This record gives sequence, C-alpha cells and structure tokens, in this order.
Amino acid sequence: MIIDCHGHYTTSPRQHEAWRTEQVTAHGEGRPAPPRPAIRDDEIRASIVNGQLRLQRERGTDLTIFSPRAAGMGHHLGDATTSEAWASACNELIHRVCSLFPQNFVGVCMLPQTAGVSPRNCIAELERCVLQYGFVGCNLNPDPSGGYWKDPPLGDRYWYPLYEKMVELDVPAMIHVSAACNPAFHTTGSHYLNGDTAAFMQCLTSDLFKNFPTLKFIIPHGGGAVPYHWGRFRGLAQDMKLPPLSDLLLRNVFFDTCVYHLPGQELLTRVIPLENILFASEMIGAVRGIDPETGHPYDDTKRSIEQLPLAPGDKAKLYEGNALRVYGRLSAQLAKQSAR
Amino acid sequence: MIIDCHGHYTTSPRQHEAWRTEQVTAHGEGRPAPPRPAIRDDEIRASIVNGQLRLQRERGTDLTIFSPRAAGMGHHLGDATTSEAWASACNELIHRVCSLFPQNFVGVCMLPQTAGVSPRNCIAELERCVLQYGFVGCNLNPDPSGGYWKDPPLGDRYWYPLYEKMVELDVPAMIHVSAACNPAFHTTGSHYLNGDTAAFMQCLTSDLFKNFPTLKFIIPHGGGAVPYHWGRFRGLAQDMKLPPLSDLLLRNVFFDTCVYHLPGQELLTRVIPLENILFASEMIGAVRGIDPETGHPYDDTKRSIEQLPLAPGDKAKLYEGNALRVYGRLSAQLAKQSAR
Repeated sequence: MIIDCHGHYTTSPRQHEAWRTEQVTAHGEGRPAPPRPAIRDDEIRASIVNGQLRLQRERGTDLTIFSPRAAGMGHHLGDATTSEAWASACNELIHRVCSLFPQNFVGVCMLPQTAGVSPRNCIAELERCVLQYGFVGCNLNPDPSGGYWKDPPLGDRYWYPLYEKMVELDVPAMIHVSAACNPAFHTTGSHYLNGDTAAFMQCLTSDLFKNFPTLKFIIPHGGGAVPYHWGRFRGLAQDMKLPPLSDLLLRNVFFDTCVYHLPGQELLTRVIPLENILFASEMIGAVRGIDPETGHPYDDTKRSIEQLPLAPGDKAKLYEGNALRVYGRLSAQLAKQSAR
Repeated sequence: MIIDCHGHYTTSPRQHEAWRTEQVTAHGEGRPAPPRPAIRDDEIRASIVNGQLRLQRERGTDLTIFSPRAAGMGHHLGDATTSEAWASACNELIHRVCSLFPQNFVGVCMLPQTAGVSPRNCIAELERCVLQYGFVGCNLNPDPSGGYWKDPPLGDRYWYPLYEKMVELDVPAMIHVSAACNPAFHTTGSHYLNGDTAAFMQCLTSDLFKNFPTLKFIIPHGGGAVPYHWGRFRGLAQDMKLPPLSDLLLRNVFFDTCVYHLPGQELLTRVIPLENILFASEMIGAVRGIDPETGHPYDDTKRSIEQLPLAPGDKAKLYEGNALRVYGRLSAQLAKQSAR
C-alpha cells in the first residue's frame, strides 16, 4: 500500500471557502457569522473524483492522509470563536470526504488555534475529530500569528496540555503553518519552509521529547532546510553538548517527502534514516505545474522516489510501514474504513 | 587563489564587544555611551593569527572577505544612533584587520540599520567604508527587527536608495540577518537559514532586478532551503508565469557554500549553476566542532568541495572567478593591498 501522508482539501466546494470570507467579514464588522452553507454529497464527490482521487489513480498511490487546506486555516484571522467555528466546518468536510471514499482517505484535523490563546482550547476539537470522526492526527501550527511568530516555541509548556491529549489519544501532529499575513513571507515559498526549519530547531533546543517520549511530529516539505543542512544541525547539537540527533530527536521527529525534484529526494533519503521518512506529495497543493526538465508534475514525488536506489524493504517503510507506525491509530482506522 | 567570501570577525578583542554591551545599556538608561575602548594592533593581530589566519593556512585558503560578526550586528538593539556608532566601530576594526593582513583579508561592512528607519540612513557608512577603507561589499539585514520581520520585503522601494548607492559603487550585498531576539528562532539554527529562504523568495516575487539589472546579492548558508527545494521554486515561478529562474534571478543572485556536510555540497553544486556559487566557510562561525563522521571540522567546506567531481575550470570559478566577478571592486582592491 502506498500512503501519502500529506494531502489537503484544496479543491473543496466553492461555498465552503465563500462562507469563510463571510465569516471573517462578519467578525470584523461585529456581526454574527451567517449560517453555514449546504454542501451536497455529490459536490464533494465531484471535487474529489476530479481532483485527488484522479491523481491517486494516475500516480498509483492508494491512500491519502487528508486534512483541511493548510493556507486556509488562517489562525491569524478573527478570534478564538471564529477559529473554532472554521475548524469545525473544515474538519466536518474532511470527515465527509473520508466517509464517501473510505478506501482512499483517512482524516487529520486542523486545530482551532489563535495567536495568544492557550492550545488547551484545541483539545475538545481534537478529541471530537479522533473519537467521533476516526481521524488519526492533527496539523499543529507553530505560528498562529501568520508570520510574526508571536507564540512560544513548541518546546514551551504553553503547548503541553495539547501534547498530553495527543499522547493520550496516540495521534501525531504534522507541524504546518498556515498563510503568511506578513509581507516578508511568501506563504508556500518561504513561510512553509521556514516554519519547518524553525519547528525542528525548537525541538532540538528543548526537552520536549524527554517529557513526552511518545509524542510524534511530522515535519513536512521534506523538513524545510533541515536535511540539506543536516551537518549544521548535527554540529550545532554537538556544540551544545547534546546527544546525537538520532538519539535526541529521531524517535519523535519524522520528515515527509514533499521535495519537488530528484536531487532533493536523493539528499533526503541519503541523509535522514529511512525509518524517519514518510511518503507524501501534498498534491493538489503548492506547485501544480509540469516540470519541463522531466515532463512530469513537480509534485509527483512518487516518480522521483521510484528512481532512488532503495532496497524493497526500505521503500515499503517509506511508502507504508513508517506511516502505520507514526500514525498509531491508522491500522485500526483502515480496518474500520475498509469494512464499510 | 581560494577566496572565502564569508568570514566574520567572531574573535575580536574582548573590549570591543564589552563596549557594545555598555553602549546598549547606556542607551536603555538614557545615558550617552561611554568612550570607545582602545584596542592595540597586537591585540587584533593575536585574535587573527590564532584564529582566522591559522585556519586559512591549515585549510589552504588564501583570502577571506571579512565582515563584522553577523549575530553581533544587533540591529534591533537601541536606535539609529546606536546602530551608527556600533557599525562605525565594527567596520573600523575590520579595516584595521585588513590593513594589518592585507594579503589575507578584504573588508565588507555591516550597515547601521534599524527596524523602521529608512535604509537611506546606511548610505553614508557604505560610502565611507567603500571609498575610504576599500571595502568591496556590505552585509544587508533583511530583518533588522531580529525575527519579527517588520520591515518591507527586499523588493520594496523602501530599500531602493541603498540599492542605488550599491550599484553606483559596484558593491554587492550579502543578505544576512543578525541575532534573533524572537524566542521562536535559534539564531544560527533557524533564523539565518530562514532569512536566506525568505530573501530569495522576496527577490523571486519582485521586479527588483528589472529595475537594478546590475545589483548583486549573495545568499549565504548555501542559500538556506533554496537549492534543496529548487524544484519547488522553479515550479512556483512557473505557476506565477514568471521566466525560468536562470533568467529571472541568476544574473543577480548567488549562493555561498556554507553547507556543513558533503551531501549538501553535492546537491548545491548539482542543482545551482557553478557560475552562481561562491566558495565560503563562515569560519570561525556557527559550527565549530569536529564532525565525528569525517574526523574533520564541520565548517571545513573546502574539504567537501575537493571531493566533488568538478572540472578544474568549474572549481576555479567557485574558488575565485565568481568572487572576482560578483565583487566588482575586488580585483583592484587586491592589487592595491598586495602592493603594501
């Protein structure tokens, strides 16, 4: 089985995102949000069949771990109530996709985060999504301010209530920022990658995984700048008298394969232990074109991986085994969904 | 000749940094700064002979393009007057190093930047350093707020007065942030790399080089996350209907080789045209230990480069030719310093 651990619902029916605009506008004007729009099953079906499902089939992947559009999370917009209503709407939609296509999608939730508001606020929605919807993880935004980086680093006790619940439920978090509202950053070009690199370094300099030995983070986009600068990070840890990164972080931190050219994939799989790499494409996502150098889509990461000199056992880990290990509830959830 | 284009004076005599602390404290208390300390030539000599110069000789490099300590620039501390006095002191010290060791060091200045203060403010110091000291470039901090990213992106007209002077003087800028005062970022572990990636994307999304076709930027630390994600950046530009990156940016943007392991160096030199890569180590800098995997210092980048399958002509470009091209005043300055 080939599990793509990083897919967002970037093609959701138009009225969903339209409602978000209305909701944020209403908040700005001090009015209550309008009622949520009706979205029919056939609209959801169309958005998937012509989008993610078509590409799964074309590219030969089996299952996408699916979550709300990352740039759309917009934790910097509105307030805690706005975020709660929006997270609830987005997660419900993911649940409907997973219910309509139980063989192809398993859900991961966004969290109702707000800059400066305790992550404790996210626990109820996480619990609801995992226990009621059967979701297997969450996306955690390390910078709900959208590029101003106002919240404490991930190693801070500020985040601990959420981590306690994650550990209790046995769900990992993908550390994923949302849209940048800071003009210094381009959302998918620099903010995403910088969020990944910042998060990794926040983990490296904290005692987070001493306190939560079973907590698991997936750093997306191939780990931002981390694998390319693996020597730098090894050396920084060493200068700080910390243990080797394999002992310090690699029981808890994993990287996905969203790197959109072969040399990057080669570096990733050469530098990072195969046990710590999860297959992903983030399609349909940040980069949608055809690479003129290959004649294939930039985000068809499976195509690059197929060109790597990986042993069959290693490839199976990267495609399936690691995901089943990192997402502790995935096997059971798959069994449940397959039975439908 | 082997030119290391990225060295900072991280070993300056103790009283220099001590004065900085006093200066910032005095500013905070509304007092004038104390007079600057005396620093004898032999103190400077000792700091270099036992530091940078020893490593140049051990590693077999010839010349370092040398600038004030990057993390020490601290543009977020004090105000414009504080920054002016500090930049002046730091640059003078670099000038003294270059005068004492004219065969081994050529100067690059830091700029008296302050968040929210026009870069116009930096012109006088740049001019002084280039025309009086013979410096060949400057370090430009894209985020003088130290990790809060409050200034406009580099493509904004806000920066144009400085660019006009750089073009007039024919000096490039290394785009280099300083210390992070935002607890979300580790200075050398994430803020530096994120600054590089953000700066590259700011260039990609602007018409800066249309307006300044001869302006040149060096993105340090191997370009942050950029070469590792080169496919992503090519794809993003393509989705925006921009020209290929080679036409859009590579006449103006260059990367250094401060990547502290062989796989990273391999990726860099494979993905980025050799014309756009300048040899650098940033020694004595962010990472000072010995890599147990190789038995050699992490920042001995020359050792990695010697292992790459580069044609002699390409290696000469990377070690010397590109630096002489990017730093337009370097050849003449070298001739002048060699004559001493």
